[in-house]
This record gives sequence, C-alpha cells and structure tokens, in this order.
Amino acid sequence: MPDISDLTLEEKAALTSGLDFWRLKAIERLGIPSIMVTDGPHGLRKQAGESDHLGLNAAVPATCFPPAVGLGASWDPALAERVGAAIGREAAIEDVAVVLGPGVNIKRSVLCGRNFEYFSEDPIHASDMGSGIVRGIQSQGVGTSLKHFAANNQETDRMRVSSDVDPRPLREIYLRAFQGVVEDTQPWTVMCSYNRVNGVYASEDPFLLTEVLREEWGFEGLVVSDWGASNVRTEGIKAGMDLEMPSSNGLSDRQLVAAVKAGELDEADLDRAAERVLNLIRRANERAAVSEALDVDAHHALAREAAGRSIVLLKNEGPILPLRPEQKVAVIGEFAEKPRYQGGGSSHITPTRVDVALDAIREVADGEVAYAPGYVLPEAPEGIGMSGGKSPKPAAEVLEKLRAEAVAVAKDADITLVFVGLPDEDESEGFDREHIDLPAEHLALVDAVADANPNTVVVLSNGGVVALPFADRVPAIVESWLLGQAGGSGVADVLYGAVNPSGRLAESFPYRLEDTPAFTSFPGEGQHVRYGEGIYVGYRWYDARKMDVAFPFGHGLSYTSFAYGDAAARWTDEGIAISVDVTNTGSVAGREVVQAYVSVPGSSVDRAPRELKAFASVELQPGETATVELLARRRDLRYWEERVQAWILESGDYVVELGSSSRELHTNATVAVAGDQLVIPLTRDASVGDAFAHPVAGPVARAEIASSPFGAIMMDGDELSPMGRDMPLSRLVSFGVPVELVTRILEAGK
Amino acid sequence: MPDISDLTLEEKAALTSGLDFWRLKAIERLGIPSIMVTDGPHGLRKQAGESDHLGLNAAVPATCFPPAVGLGASWDPALAERVGAAIGREAAIEDVAVVLGPGVNIKRSVLCGRNFEYFSEDPIHASDMGSGIVRGIQSQGVGTSLKHFAANNQETDRMRVSSDVDPRPLREIYLRAFQGVVEDTQPWTVMCSYNRVNGVYASEDPFLLTEVLREEWGFEGLVVSDWGASNVRTEGIKAGMDLEMPSSNGLSDRQLVAAVKAGELDEADLDRAAERVLNLIRRANERAAVSEALDVDAHHALAREAAGRSIVLLKNEGPILPLRPEQKVAVIGEFAEKPRYQGGGSSHITPTRVDVALDAIREVADGEVAYAPGYVLPEAPEGIGMSGGKSPKPAAEVLEKLRAEAVAVAKDADITLVFVGLPDEDESEGFDREHIDLPAEHLALVDAVADANPNTVVVLSNGGVVALPFADRVPAIVESWLLGQAGGSGVADVLYGAVNPSGRLAESFPYRLEDTPAFTSFPGEGQHVRYGEGIYVGYRWYDARKMDVAFPFGHGLSYTSFAYGDAAARWTDEGIAISVDVTNTGSVAGREVVQAYVSVPGSSVDRAPRELKAFASVELQPGETATVELLARRRDLRYWEERVQAWILESGDYVVELGSSSRELHTNATVAVAGDQLVIPLTRDASVGDAFAHPVAGPVARAEIASSPFGAIMMDGDELSPMGRDMPLSRLVSFGVPVELVTRILEAGK
Repeated sequence: MPDISDLTLEEKAALTSGLDFWRLKAIERLGIPSIMVTDGPHGLRKQAGESDHLGLNAAVPATCFPPAVGLGASWDPALAERVGAAIGREAAIEDVAVVLGPGVNIKRSVLCGRNFEYFSEDPIHASDMGSGIVRGIQSQGVGTSLKHFAANNQETDRMRVSSDVDPRPLREIYLRAFQGVVEDTQPWTVMCSYNRVNGVYASEDPFLLTEVLREEWGFEGLVVSDWGASNVRTEGIKAGMDLEMPSSNGLSDRQLVAAVKAGELDEADLDRAAERVLNLIRRANERAAVSEALDVDAHHALAREAAGRSIVLLKNEGPILPLRPEQKVAVIGEFAEKPRYQGGGSSHITPTRVDVALDAIREVADGEVAYAPGYVLPEAPEGIGMSGGKSPKPAAEVLEKLRAEAVAVAKDADITLVFVGLPDEDESEGFDREHIDLPAEHLALVDAVADANPNTVVVLSNGGVVALPFADRVPAIVESWLLGQAGGSGVADVLYGAVNPSGRLAESFPYRLEDTPAFTSFPGEGQHVRYGEGIYVGYRWYDARKMDVAFPFGHGLSYTSFAYGDAAARWTDEGIAISVDVTNTGSVAGREVVQAYVSVPGSSVDRAPRELKAFASVELQPGETATVELLARRRDLRYWEERVQAWILESGDYVVELGSSSRELHTNATVAVAGDQLVIPLTRDASVGDAFAHPVAGPVARAEIASSPFGAIMMDGDELSPMGRDMPLSRLVSFGVPVELVTRILEAGK
Repeated sequence: MPDISDLTLEEKAALTSGLDFWRLKAIERLGIPSIMVTDGPHGLRKQAGESDHLGLNAAVPATCFPPAVGLGASWDPALAERVGAAIGREAAIEDVAVVLGPGVNIKRSVLCGRNFEYFSEDPIHASDMGSGIVRGIQSQGVGTSLKHFAANNQETDRMRVSSDVDPRPLREIYLRAFQGVVEDTQPWTVMCSYNRVNGVYASEDPFLLTEVLREEWGFEGLVVSDWGASNVRTEGIKAGMDLEMPSSNGLSDRQLVAAVKAGELDEADLDRAAERVLNLIRRANERAAVSEALDVDAHHALAREAAGRSIVLLKNEGPILPLRPEQKVAVIGEFAEKPRYQGGGSSHITPTRVDVALDAIREVADGEVAYAPGYVLPEAPEGIGMSGGKSPKPAAEVLEKLRAEAVAVAKDADITLVFVGLPDEDESEGFDREHIDLPAEHLALVDAVADANPNTVVVLSNGGVVALPFADRVPAIVESWLLGQAGGSGVADVLYGAVNPSGRLAESFPYRLEDTPAFTSFPGEGQHVRYGEGIYVGYRWYDARKMDVAFPFGHGLSYTSFAYGDAAARWTDEGIAISVDVTNTGSVAGREVVQAYVSVPGSSVDRAPRELKAFASVELQPGETATVELLARRRDLRYWEERVQAWILESGDYVVELGSSSRELHTNATVAVAGDQLVIPLTRDASVGDAFAHPVAGPVARAEIASSPFGAIMMDGDELSPMGRDMPLSRLVSFGVPVELVTRILEAGK
C-alpha cells in the first residue's frame, strides 16, 4: 500500500468521500483498491447489482439474526459475540470490508422509531452487548461501524435536530455506551450521526469526534458519516470526520481541494483523514479471501438459538406455560402465519429462509392445531419497508367476522395462543411513533379471545415497547419482539419448553405513554429537542419518582426458580468485585440473569436510586449452585464533574444490590470506596463553602471568615450556614467584608 | 435638579452604587439628595437607626399585609392594588422613595424557600397580581422594584447558580410575568436577581436588561441589583444594570472611573446609568412630603379584609363549615396561639399589631373555647428569621402528653379546629425546603384528634405547598397560608362565615414531592440548574401527563354555589373577548373566581392542555346573576418562535374553557383566530418541508422535487413523506439530486 505522501491533493480529497452508495474510491494508479461497506447490524444487507442513489436495490440473501431489541434481551454479550462472528463470516464471504453496526444509542423515548435497532435504555447494558457484536464481527477480519455517534435518539427531524443535552447525561448516559465499546473493542470505524448535539452537527463537532472520541477514549479508527450526514465538508475534515458517505458526486472533493489551495483548510487535516481511509483499506485487505459458501443451516440454527434466548416471559400465572404437546391448542392472529421479524429501514435484510410460528407449533403439538387469523395485517411496505403511510383499516364487519371466527376456535381449545403486535408500518427507521398502543383490532381480539377462553397466552411481536391494557386479564404474556428469520421456531421452542426462557427486559414497560421520562420533551420542535429528564432515563426515572410500571427493567420469568445467597463485595483496583451464590431451585435447567445495581447513598451529586453496573447470564441445572462473580468497574462508578471537566470517583459507601430485575432485588452488600479528591479551583466565583473545602485555602478561609464581622450570619456554630455556604467570595465585599480578606483567601488557594 | 453634564466622572460613578445598605448617595455640591429604599413587598421594612452591613437592624412598625402566597390566592388584582396603595402610603409617611417589590417569580418547584413571597405557578396570574401591587404603591408617588429579574426560582446557590432555561419556557413562563407588569404598569425600577441565566449573571446580561426589558418591553425606569448581585461592575453598566446596591465601599466607583479613563468603558454607558439614577431621585422628589401619622386601625382593617380574601377552603364535607357560635369548639395546635403570619428574610416586617386566631375565635364563639397546644413550636429564629437551623424536637414523652391532652379536649367538643403547619425554621429566604411534609408531630396530632372527634377541621399555616396525607380523614381543610398580622381574625372570619371564602389555589397541591415537575432537576448542582420540564410548569405538567393531584390549580370552595351559563367568545383586535353569565345559586352572598383557560388543539408547537389567560373575582348576592366579561389578550395567546426570534399568534381554532378551577370546567367556546404568518427563512439548513411551505419558493420546490429521481421516496402521493419533509435541502446532493436543483429552490426563496 502506498504512503499518504504518494498521493496528490486531488487523490487525497477523493479518498475522503464515497465512490457510490456502498463503495469507497479506488486509486488505480497506486494500486489502492475499492472496498465495500454494507448495512448491518443484525445481518448483512449487501445490495445486489449496481449501487443506486438511495441504496434501495434488493440485497443478496443473508441470515437475519434477531435485531438489537431482541438480542439485547438476552443480556448475554457472549451470545452477541457468536452472532457477530456469524455476521462477520457472511460479510467475509461476500467480500464486505465493514458491516455498518452495531447501534448503541440509548432508548431515550419509547416512541423512537428506530428503537428496534438499539439494545437498551441503560448504557452499561448497551455497551456490553455492543462490544459483543464488535468482537464477533471483527474476529472474522471484517470491520464494524459503531453508530450513531451521538445522541441520536429519535427519527423526527433527525437530519437537523439538535439534541440539547447537559454534560452529565451526555457523558453518563448517551456517550457512555460508545465509550465502553471503543475502549473495550476498538471498532474499526465509528459512524457519526445526522443530528446536531448542543447545536453542532455531529459530523463536524471537534468535541465529539476528536476531543472525546480520540483524545479521551483513545479511538484509533476512522469516522464515517451516516449516509448524507456530512454538512460543510471542510468543517467535517477539521473536526475529525474522515470519510463522507455516500458519494457527493465530486462536489465535496472539489471543495476540499479548493479550500486547501485557498489556505482555508490545512492540508495536514486532509492528510489525516485520507490516511485513516488508507488505513481502513489496508486493514480490509489483510483479510484473506474467503471462497467457501455460506453454511445456511448452521447460521439459521444460531439465529434460532438467539431468538429463543431473546424472548422475555413477562407473565406466567398457573404456570400455564410451558405447553404440553398433548394440549389442544388454538393459534390466533395473523402474526403467527405472517411473522414480523425485523424492522423497516437500512437494517432490512433479505433472509435466507423464514420460520413461521404456526408451522413450528404444529410440528411440536400432538394433535391438530386450529388457526384463525383474527385480524388483517396491512401489506408490508415495499423495499426496505420505510414507508410511514397508514393503510386503510379493513371494514368493521370484516374484523367482526374474523374476531367471531377466532372466538369460535378459542372456545374449542385447551389453550389459545394469541399473536398480536405492531405491523411494519407502525415502526421503522425514518419516523417516530406517536403512541405506544397496539392496533385497536388486536386489543379487541385479545379481549374477545380471553373472554372465550381464560387459558389465553398473548404472544407479542413488536420492536418498541407497547402498552398492555390486557395484562391483568390473561394468565401469560410472551414478549417475542422482532426475532429475526428463526423467530417462529424460537417462539415455539419457548412455548413448549424446549428453551427455558431467560430473556430480560432491557427497557421498562410503562403503563402509559404519559408516564415516560421524555413525554414532555420528545421529539422537540424548531430543530431542538431538550433532554429535559437529564440522567433520569428509563428505570432511573421510574425509580427516582417512585412510579409503578407494568414490567420493570430487567424483568423476565423462567420455568424454573432461583435462590440467591448473600452478596459479597470488596473494593479492588478494578472496581467493586462482587460475588453471590445462585442456585437453581426448580426442576428444569434454566438461565438466570444476575443483575448488579449500585447506589451511592448521600452522594454529593444527583444520582438515580440504582444504576446497573454489571450482569451475567448463568446456566444452571436443577439443584446446581454457581458462584457468580461480577465486576462493577471503577470506570462505571464515576460521575462526570463538569466543573473540573473530569470523571470523579466519589468517596463513600457504595451499596450493591443483586437481583433478577431492577425491582426484584434479593441481596445487597455495602463497600467503602476511597475515591478521587475533588478540588474546585478557587476563583472569585467560588463560594465560601468551596473555600472552606479547599485543601490548602480551607483553614485560611475558616479563620478569616469566622473572625470577620460577617461570621455571625455566615456561620451556624462551627458550620457554615446555608446562605454562607453558597456566598461567592467576590460578593463578600457588598456585605462589608474587606476586599483584602477575600484576596488573602484567593491567594491561599493558588 | 442638575443635568448629567453637570456631574464629574467621579460623581457619575458614585451615583451608580449605594451609600449604605438602604440609601443612595447624595451629591451635595449639586443639591442632589439621598433617597432611601426599603424592603417590601407585603409591608414596609424600614430599618430604624443606622444602616448596618447586612440590613438586619430592627425595623419601624408597619402593617404586615398577607405575603404574596396569601394575597395571590385572592385572585383579585383590585384587592392587590388597594393593599399596594396602603403600603405606598406607609412608605410615603416614612419618606421611603422605593419599596422593593413585588416579586413575580414563578413557583417552579414546591421546594423553593421563598415561594411565600411569590404569587403563582402561572405567569398571567403572577403578572396581574403584581401589576395590582405596582399600581397601588405607585399611586402614592412611591416607586416599586419589580423583582427578582429573572429566572430566580430557588434559594440554593442563588448567588451563582445558572438557571438554564430554553427560549420558550424562558419567554412564556419565566419572563412573562415581568413582561406583563412592565408593559402594563411601568414600575419605577426593576431588580435584577443574583443568579445567572443560561450562564450569564442577570446583573450583567445585556439580553435581559437591555434587549428584552427595554427594547422589547419598553421599560423606562432603572435597574437595581439585588443586594450583592453585582458581579463585574463594568459589565453591569454596559449591560444596563444602573444601580448597584448596597454600597461597595467605593470599590466599584473607583473601578468605573478607572475603566472609563483606560478606555475600557464608554463614558456614555456610565452616563446612561447615572442619568437613570438621577431620574429616579427626581421622581422620588416630586412626591410632596407627608406629615400625617399612619392610620394603624384602617390599615389593620384592610389587612384583615385581605387575609379573609386569601384563605382557601380546600375541603368542606357536610358542609361542616361555617361554624355556628353556639357550637362547642375545641382549638388545638400552638399555631392558634402563636400565629405564623409571614416568612423569614428580607420581607420580614415588624407589625403594628398581631391578631391571634384563638382570641378571635373566642370573641365569636358563644361559650367557652377549650384550647390545647398539641405540640411545641420551635423558637422563631432571631431578627429577620433567616436561620436554616433545625431546633431539636421535644422529647417523645412531652409530645405524647400534649397529644393526649389534645385528644381529651377534642373528645369533649362538637367541633375541633386543629391548627398545624410549617414552623418558621422550615421555610425562609436563603434556603430551599427538602420535602413538603408537615412536621411529624403535627401529622400525628391530626390523626389522633380526627380519631377522637370526626368533626375535625384542619387549619393550615404554611408559605409553601405541603402534602396532606390526612385529606381523606377529615371533613374540612382550611388553607390559611401566611396571612399577615390580621391573619388570626381573618381565619375566624372565614370559620364562622363572616367572610365567605373565595380564595383559590395559585399553585397545585400534589400528592407527593415525587410527582412535581422539577423533582428530577431541582435545585441542580455544580452551579447549574436545568429547567428540564420546559413549559410544563405547575398545572401544565399535571394536565399534560394526566396526573391526579390532591387539589388542582384554581381550586377553592365557597359557602354558596354558582351556576354557569353558556360561554360566548369572539375574536377582537385585543384578543378573545369572552363572556359568561354566572349565578349565585346558594343562600349566602359570595365570590366566584371565574377562570378562563385556553387551548389550541392541533397546534404546530408543544402546548399545555390548557393555560390560564384571564380571570375575574365577582361578588354575587344570593340569586344574583352577573355577566362576566374577560379578555384573553392577543399578547398572551402567542407562543415564542425562536427560529424567527418573535412572538407568533398561530392561526387556528382556539378553545376557551371557563370554570371554577383548572379541573372544574363548566362551559367552553371555540373561536377561529387568523394569526400571524410564520415564514422560516430558506437557508441550506431548511428542510424540504420548509421549502414546500414557503410562500414564494413553495411551488418551485414542489415542482423540482416531484419531478426529480428522488421524488419517489420524498413524496407519499401528493404529500411529502416524513423522511422527505425533514430532509435538509443541503443534503439532497448526497442522494443524487443535482446541486443546481437545490440552488434553484434557494434562489426562489430569497
């Protein structure tokens, strides 16, 4: 491969934008080949034939694994890594250099249309799951693109809207997942998002792309724009946005050349970007060509395993589940026959095959399985399914007839399985939802069937959280998300107990949209969205405000039961080392997801009542006990202190709570942590309280203030009064304190 | 009076800061006298004797009228004007030039320690009540100081904290009350607050002090700093902060002179400030000297009338109230004997006399009135009561004994009146509350007494909202706030029906602190507080999130009943003219507060479900009907459009709801409003949707896009797809649209 110095100015500029929708430019003169990138992240979307301007042409078949909403519910980074490795293998077979994923944006609002592509409302969960995907894909010599960086948490006006986020939520919630993946796995590329962050386009923000990403986190790869996210290309180059995609049809290249020639852009900035593109091409070329064909069956089997692991058993009274083959089952709802297994948009895959739940159930069940569609699904949108159009509803009498037929079928069965959920047109990349309700005809169907047969199990297909008004009326609810091409089998596996469910909610299920944290500030207006809930995202909000939810973060049932021993926790150089014995006290094998939440009672800063810091999925045979070891990492225990622009580990007692969900906590332990010393620089804006707390100036301030005429109101015995504590040093003069006294305190603090 | 050109540089500088804590400087050479200002706002706090550095010396006696928390509950600006006139008269008698009030800050959080000094959680209510006070005081030739400007909604770290507020809530909620008072009454002075607003000290913010206050609102008076709010004096002068108070002991004066001499400060800026001070002195001197003595009795009678009008009857089952003189009454709770009638801090007044509820009840009741203190109040803090110290609680056995005594007394009575509330040390200027609970021993007392005697009336004394866990257990609750020196009589007047209660809540009573809008973002940390709830303050929050509250905004009962006719509404040049017939359908005279709430269904911007736009307090004899006319002013129907930096009256159907509270709405009317045309300037950041909506470029954009290869995904039939709508014009190039097409659209929009 040539060196950057071998390239002309025009060639360097050319390298920093795409050849077409999917390919980078070659420089044949120097033997630099063109490489190809394709959409991910839960399977390969490599377009067949020529590239088009919108990337909408049909894609070659690939295994569709569970989208992040499903896989995230497995709470198992090792499983994500295996799925990633399979995707990487498929990419290598197709000679794809970079798979455009994973997406680790936080589910700020339940309404975000693209939530199905994201893992979680919690940054540690999203980070660890995302790291699994990156490790897996990159293990095959294929690159990843960690996206969408950053604070891209809605589709509405996504190409312009400014996500206005304060420093702590930005750092602790929205950047945290990216930070974890970058620091732990070094993805080959990071994809900057369309939106602005605090007023600056992510594609031209030196704070995000250079200061935070590279200088703080040590990112060594390349930054690529989301498709069409480049704004002013020269600003992007300066900020650290190396590669514009797709093609600008030569426009950006000409602008860059002109800017360098006019002295408006330092050629070194362009060199840096072009060199990173060269490095990416070099890296892609290191992978040996793969000539073998895709093992469709093996990958489908993995997709099925992952689907089963993604399902969350929300409710199971009786327990009515698992089913026995001899039970007479009625399957109701068109989703059982026409599965929805992925979402619309750039992640939309052409699957190698599709398992249908109704077929899979019929395979396991002993006798005949009755079926009634119950409702009519709208036609799926064409292409990658991004239409936001609403199909006309079938006539009322059609729905009534379907419902009556379903009721008749239900009455005749031991158990009814009602498949309901969100049709394609209800959620997609490109637009946000406006409510969290299931279609009215689905809700009416559940009610009618549950009336007809109390042994009704609801099976949900949905990429985003939905309200479950029937939750108290049915004995069992199975959350089967969008599960990829093997979802139909995965559901049957769980229903009949071939797989003991171990999925857990990576997002809270609220009772009402009005309860959700961002309800009053989503999706914003006038090109701004204020992240008004601050750090209180997801369960942090419901816990802080002591609100009931339908199903809490981390929740999920099993066909067996687990018992927890006493938690043990100790401080180490790496963080809080936690251990606990967990026993399978039931009669079947199963997985428990052990969750560790940490709180800091009496913290000097706002904190959620508990924050997830570590988790582990552990498989246990009946009667088996395992000692589960977890690490709440030092990195993750810190808070961002904007006043000193640094992460601070606060000293104090940290409480570790261990449990099966954020609201089912079995045991806890407290560990004393000796943290960082926070020294607020002593300026004239510093308060008397800051001065008292200063390691050097403190004693001086104390003596000066206490003996001044002002001491009477500033002090409350030996302590500062609230008024005194917050009084800026500069203002003391207004209240008769000699300016020299203030100067002496400031001098001492220098 | 001399002209500004007669003054030396040093004299001009000298004029722009105080002589001492309360007085401005004289310039004897030119015959410029020293004038005095004193704390308000619900009575005069003129210090006796020499000024001290903290303004803590004892004050001359003055009538203590109900603090804003009480008077605000009257919902009667005319009453506020009469109270203001009395305060102005007292100021004139004491030769005080300016009374430092009213305070019209919004009650953003129930925890703000100074809420008792503010009127409301609603800006129109606060504005109209504040205007009443200003009109009254200034009618006596005495000035006012509208405070604390701006976004000063907490005491915590108030001298440094930055209130970080987005444009719409800043304009529509936090500045709105100030705007109304300035535009409607031209207060002589405005007092800038201690805090920063979006990072800039209010005392040196040219946006607030010049652009908004003077250029937009037309303020003609002087801006004075809150006491000690001046930061960098030269920046203050530049920004429009004319007068620093109190004295800087010459420091600021020297700095200003040096800055002018060094060319760092334009002398014209200093001239402008000094001239405004001269104007203030001139204006103050125009008032003829008042030699008459204060008519203590007349002002006390007005204080009593205002107290009665301020009381809110929250609950009255039976109805158990009003009492009859022949009923055997037991009075319980030390507040009945030791009234709390004002809050701690700069507004703390030395009253001319104090009425005690127990005495006033004994005067009305026929027989003997038993009394038991029930608990022990902590000693009131000394001086102006600003200590935040917590007194030790009495021993448990002492409280038990008091409670047992109270129970014995209660058992022996027909009716028990239990006085409970917040002691002085629980709320004050200088610190915020940490919870909204009544003292545990007060709650225990209510429970014990209610158990002993079901005919229990709770009478509350509190400056800020409290939780009422006993609300379902007692038949009646009387909210008697802090009512000024005649509060004791005012309570007796209402309890026995001499005054039919007509007070209404100017703030919502939530069930729990956790329900309140600012719960997750108050009081901030690290010198910043994010107003994360945006425009959803107070009832706007509870309504938007469909939350139950204990008692809603606007609520208050009467001893009579009112019936509403049909609302009529029509559009006029001034706004929506509303009229409704209201009839007293009960058997006693009473006042109804008619409240008009407006909503804009289908608005293009976020709106609260309803917003108070007008109100009127109307007195009606039994059987009497009045036609109540209200005006929802054009000014108040607009929203702030940050993209064009202007107030916009949206076109559409406006719904007017009329009722007795924000949740007891009797009648409504809809009126079509032809509003302003909003034209978003067409820049490269403008979206295709903006282009389509542009009056000139629209047809061009429509034709160009529809016929481009991109039309297929941008259009959904004749309409733009969601994705198309939000696509910036500048990004079309990335998706294969020729740059010339974009240029043609932008050209058309020029």
